[in-house]
Amino acid sequence: MANTKYQYVKHFEEDERILLNTYFVVRIDGKGFHKFAEAHHFEKPNDIRALELMNRVAAEILKSYGDCVLAIGESDEYSFVFKRKTTLFNRRKTKILTTIVSQFTAMYVFYWAEYMPVPMQYPPSFDGRIVIYPSYQNIRDYISWRQADTHINNLYNTAFWALVLKGNETETAAEAILRGTLSKDKNELLFSRFGINYNNEPEFFKKGSVVIREKRDLILKRMEEKPDTISLSLTKEQVAALSEGSYETVVLHCDVIRDSPFWEEHPDLLD
Amino acid sequence: MANTKYQYVKHFEEDERILLNTYFVVRIDGKGFHKFAEAHHFEKPNDIRALELMNRVAAEILKSYGDCVLAIGESDEYSFVFKRKTTLFNRRKTKILTTIVSQFTAMYVFYWAEYMPVPMQYPPSFDGRIVIYPSYQNIRDYISWRQADTHINNLYNTAFWALVLKGNETETAAEAILRGTLSKDKNELLFSRFGINYNNEPEFFKKGSVVIREKRDLILKRMEEKPDTISLSLTKEQVAALSEGSYETVVLHCDVIRDSPFWEEHPDLLD
Amino acid sequence: MANTKYQYVKHFEEDERILLNTYFVVRIDGKGFHKFAEAHHFEKPNDIRALELMNRVAAEILKSYGDCVLAIGESDEYSFVFKRKTTLFNRRKTKILTTIVSQFTAMYVFYWAEYMPVPMQYPPSFDGRIVIYPSYQNIRDYISWRQADTHINNLYNTAFWALVLKGNETETAAEAILRGTLSKDKNELLFSRFGINYNNEPEFFKKGSVVIREKRDLILKRMEEKPDTISLSLTKEQVAALSEGSYETVVLHCDVIRDSPFWEEHPDLLD
Amino acid sequence: MANTKYQYVKHFEEDERILLNTYFVVRIDGKGFHKFAEAHHFEKPNDIRALELMNRVAAEILKSYGDCVLAIGESDEYSFVFKRKTTLFNRRKTKILTTIVSQFTAMYVFYWAEYMPVPMQYPPSFDGRIVIYPSYQNIRDYISWRQADTHINNLYNTAFWALVLKGNETETAAEAILRGTLSKDKNELLFSRFGINYNNEPEFFKKGSVVIREKRDLILKRMEEKPDTISLSLTKEQVAALSEGSYETVVLHCDVIRDSPFWEEHPDLLD
Repeated sequence: MANTKYQYVKHFEEDERILLNTYFVVRIDGKGFHKFAEAHHFEKPNDIRALELMNRVAAEILKSYGDCVLAIGESDEYSFVFKRKTTLFNRRKTKILTTIVSQFTAMYVFYWAEYMPVPMQYPPSFDGRIVIYPSYQNIRDYISWRQADTHINNLYNTAFWALVLKGNETETAAEAILRGTLSKDKNELLFSRFGINYNNEPEFFKKGSVVIREKRDLILKRMEEKPDTISLSLTKEQVAALSEGSYETVVLHCDVIRDSPFWEEHPDLLD
Repeated sequence: MANTKYQYVKHFEEDERILLNTYFVVRIDGKGFHKFAEAHHFEKPNDIRALELMNRVAAEILKSYGDCVLAIGESDEYSFVFKRKTTLFNRRKTKILTTIVSQFTAMYVFYWAEYMPVPMQYPPSFDGRIVIYPSYQNIRDYISWRQADTHINNLYNTAFWALVLKGNETETAAEAILRGTLSKDKNELLFSRFGINYNNEPEFFKKGSVVIREKRDLILKRMEEKPDTISLSLTKEQVAALSEGSYETVVLHCDVIRDSPFWEEHPDLLD
Repeated sequence: MANTKYQYVKHFEEDERILLNTYFVVRIDGKGFHKFAEAHHFEKPNDIRALELMNRVAAEILKSYGDCVLAIGESDEYSFVFKRKTTLFNRRKTKILTTIVSQFTAMYVFYWAEYMPVPMQYPPSFDGRIVIYPSYQNIRDYISWRQADTHINNLYNTAFWALVLKGNETETAAEAILRGTLSKDKNELLFSRFGINYNNEPEFFKKGSVVIREKRDLILKRMEEKPDTISLSLTKEQVAALSEGSYETVVLHCDVIRDSPFWEEHPDLLD
Repeated sequence: MANTKYQYVKHFEEDERILLNTYFVVRIDGKGFHKFAEAHHFEKPNDIRALELMNRVAAEILKSYGDCVLAIGESDEYSFVFKRKTTLFNRRKTKILTTIVSQFTAMYVFYWAEYMPVPMQYPPSFDGRIVIYPSYQNIRDYISWRQADTHINNLYNTAFWALVLKGNETETAAEAILRGTLSKDKNELLFSRFGINYNNEPEFFKKGSVVIREKRDLILKRMEEKPDTISLSLTKEQVAALSEGSYETVVLHCDVIRDSPFWEEHPDLLD
């Protein structure tokens, strides 16, 4: 029963490499998370604990891949951005993709109980894809695309669930009310009917989450000036105690579309 | 903050399809399972509970994909074979691969506690690949390749761990003793030094595991004639109570290299 | 001015292989041949000399690639079918494709004057593609597809140019007359209006051209029984003088859709 | 004989697109040109007429593709560089590649007699590939790589053929003499043994050929200051008669590795 006779089947394997000198994104999406969220009673429009679980997993991924320089997430989705010079797994596309999808999934299940109040009813799953971007502007635009999407979704969901949960509308009615409305209409509806000023909603929900490594001094400044734009398990004192010039992986909820201040504060993030 | 300006980045996405009318395999491999096995005190050379966990996950995958007709596994690896006519996810390669890798991982973590006596210390991960085979002979040879590999590995591991655990050899010494030996040498060593007749080792370990849907009557016959070649949570009586002609997903430990009896008993399995 | 500093650019090259154990077709199509045909006064509906030039080029290609077992052509298009076991250029897709496209083009220009009565006015060009087929039935269906296409096109063109050249219709009027007609309508129109029995049209035009290597005895039989289904520069006597069992590259105009007689006479052609 | 039954075979076709926003090169190489050059008595080390034929073909390609901004060639090889924003053939890789390879080949045969003193003995062929470069620096380095290669090859060939044609060495002996030598050794050998100052060799041979569209005034300046760095069928007077600001496709033999003067004079060439 030697296997030499059958080993030829190995030659049918392919090993595609990601084009050199390009940025790429590993984007992970929950499969059937509408149903999964219902089965686990996720709060609407945003379940803070479920989001924190996603952020925890994303931060762990970032920590384990030095060449993953930024992750951006919302809802059941996360995008991991890699440096254009990375040689991770020799840039083997399938190896990179499947490894990260698997690690993400494993951690989501593994850390579930640390964050969620109910036991996991059944195993969730995620699919993933790799998208390649050749230029700095392209990858910036990708990041902007995801954050603009977060804004649009969150405004919609905030209005929708206000109508359902506070306005006693059916889901069908809420959908009909919002159909065709513009951003300003939804802002107006939230304010006039529910007294909600959308601008005052948490940055966490409005901006989604951005995971990066940030320098101690920038973290401290942020904790002082805009504490709602950062989620970090460390206290200000603990951060201050870090050594000069050290970096910490942080989850931010700040604008990453405009150049200022984020990209000016992190000029080398993408190279 | 409309996202229309950035949506162009979606056009960088690719969507490769698997060539029509070909068989394909999704093969999943544990990453760093040597260390993972040690951290969780897996028994050597085979941890029956860890293998049963792998088999449980594989069986669940098979149950959820009608077009996955056979899975074959050993150790921390599993291969899922799909019908050549499947239109699963429109044959989108990345979608199929990442979904199955993610489901496999999620279930491995989720069902862990049902099988393993120690808590999971840290989340494991798997990588995956898709390999395409154009002909019936090719896919049969792939299956044979994996089972021949199981034989080779298990014989080696049985001898290696006999030397270490019963023979008081160091791992280095055991390796040196086995270096360059043929199958018959390992058989002889097992017998002369440890009184182990390798042929009497469990079929489960010698053949690995093969998951298929099998007809009630074949299952009953197997349970009567070769009960060590099947793992099934149902009793003979429960199987007998199934309706005439019905199929059940079973884990087998039988030869799938020779035509007879396996392939003669399942002539339509691969089409 | 050493080039070592720049050689890294070579690593951006890719080298895709054609999946092992699959048939593949190199299909070549004339670019802008409507205009090219007009500029060179091709006869309508079929210019026999231009077709013979195409056939000559195809035959030369077949002769230079032992693993190219059949070519099928019509109008300004030719498909070259390769054996599933071929290792030509190590199955490098781009190498195979570009080499054959280039050879085809070069020979078309080079042999032009041997066939055509007018000098070439400007250089023509062809594009090409490779299509992979995993099964015998698939490749047979590909061949049938091209011949069925020849039938459809030739019937249409015969009717169209009869209307224009013999019926004094404008091209626009001829198009309008044929719009929506079925095969039998076109047959009927040809017969009633022009006294043309389409069945009596040359096999060359009705079937297109199929280039294969054929055994001496089969060639002789064909020359005797159905001389209109073969184009060959050799006389019957010259063929008879070939050694027993020898093969000759021939251009046929016979049915390759039905099993009988073509595929029964050439049972091993595709293997 | 409807073809609907067979049309499914069309679904086996693939249509790969070139990643958006990347430069790409179509590189064409002569196949078996060593033999082809001998059969047509090409002069050694450089046959000016054969090179002018290559340049003519390259210039015609450049003229027919507005998005092809530069071509660089030597010997039997040519590289065509496309703008990163091009949408040529919807960026379909195979369509772009095969079309250009075919056009190149057709023109090479078609224009042969305008340049070469002997009739073409047999049709030559070329293979081709597409290489994708994501950044400005990468594409500049590609261009530098080809020109550095020209330098190395031409210095070698100049020395080799001096030894053979003027030094009465056999080809084997010439090869042995040059084995392991550095550039300065070859320069020294040319000077000491044959009185050849390599620096005084024609720019045409030392730099190879670069085809671009150049502004009238730059052309005029070049014709006056460095006439040996340009090949153009127009006279200075004809160029001067062109309208202000107009562009002409020219063949240059100048340095394209250093920034100055070429890239400073053509700052927008690659965008």
